[in-house]
Amino acid sequence: MKAEYINPFITATVSVFDEMLNCKLSRGDPFVKDGNLSLLAVSGVIGFSGKAKGTVVISLCREAALTATEKLRGARPVEIDENVVDMVGELTNIVAGAAKGQLEHLALKITLPTVVTGKSHSIEFPSSVTPICIPFHCEWGEVIVEFGLLEQPAEVPVGA
Amino acid sequence: MKAEYINPFITATVSVFDEMLNCKLSRGDPFVKDGNLSLLAVSGVIGFSGKAKGTVVISLCREAALTATEKLRGARPVEIDENVVDMVGELTNIVAGAAKGQLEHLALKITLPTVVTGKSHSIEFPSSVTPICIPFHCEWGEVIVEFGLLEQPAEVPVGA
Repeated sequence: MKAEYINPFITATVSVFDEMLNCKLSRGDPFVKDGNLSLLAVSGVIGFSGKAKGTVVISLCREAALTATEKLRGARPVEIDENVVDMVGELTNIVAGAAKGQLEHLALKITLPTVVTGKSHSIEFPSSVTPICIPFHCEWGEVIVEFGLLEQPAEVPVGA
Repeated sequence: MKAEYINPFITATVSVFDEMLNCKLSRGDPFVKDGNLSLLAVSGVIGFSGKAKGTVVISLCREAALTATEKLRGARPVEIDENVVDMVGELTNIVAGAAKGQLEHLALKITLPTVVTGKSHSIEFPSSVTPICIPFHCEWGEVIVEFGLLEQPAEVPVGA
């Protein structure tokens, strides 16, 4: 994983939480994921295809997911319900779109978000990919961004 | 969700299990997912983008995941380990690729697979999407295919 791919995901996450949620994230050190890592209460997942293929995951603890939904929708859900699922999907979509805009040379297209819930769920990548995890902390608790990108081999021109 | 989108996922799943794993799947009735549906022990997830955006999930019970890995790798894992994760990712990739080939008019590109594990995990779609679930049964237990596709609005030509 090239270092130049990590920064767009960090800056997109920090600015989306700041601008949409008025929430200041402080970042821990990014690390290479090695083995299972249980994620938080609810995780948004979105895929990329283009000159690279990959996936980004944004995982929020229960408190962060409920409070972020309250901020955006005006009412606090009592549990991880369809409003929380929609909010996490939307947040993931916006972060992925912002990171994509900083990686124009990869001509990425993003898919629809899906949202994973369930006790101690984890989201693994194929062994061909080296996923990076970026832990964040805010006043509502923990947020983890996990992503993996695999560059596609360049197409060889016919006759080359 | 158009009915014409459901069949490619059914036929791709059945033929990949048959040809790669020598495993005959019998299909239950597809249903529209309404609310949370806990998936099985391990789920492969892959996104599509193109003239439609979407995601397909292939979820296998523990016994199906371990036995399928044994068939493909020659050794039976004792738990859901990185070999199982790789096998489920590969299987999802092959099913998605086969379904994509039957939906050429949508010019779909697929992303990298990810693999979700964790007790009673569920994978939700945004409320704008109507996901379809297709339950299958085989001698190793249960397999569920879940997918959602959202057609992109056609681009209006300039001056139209």
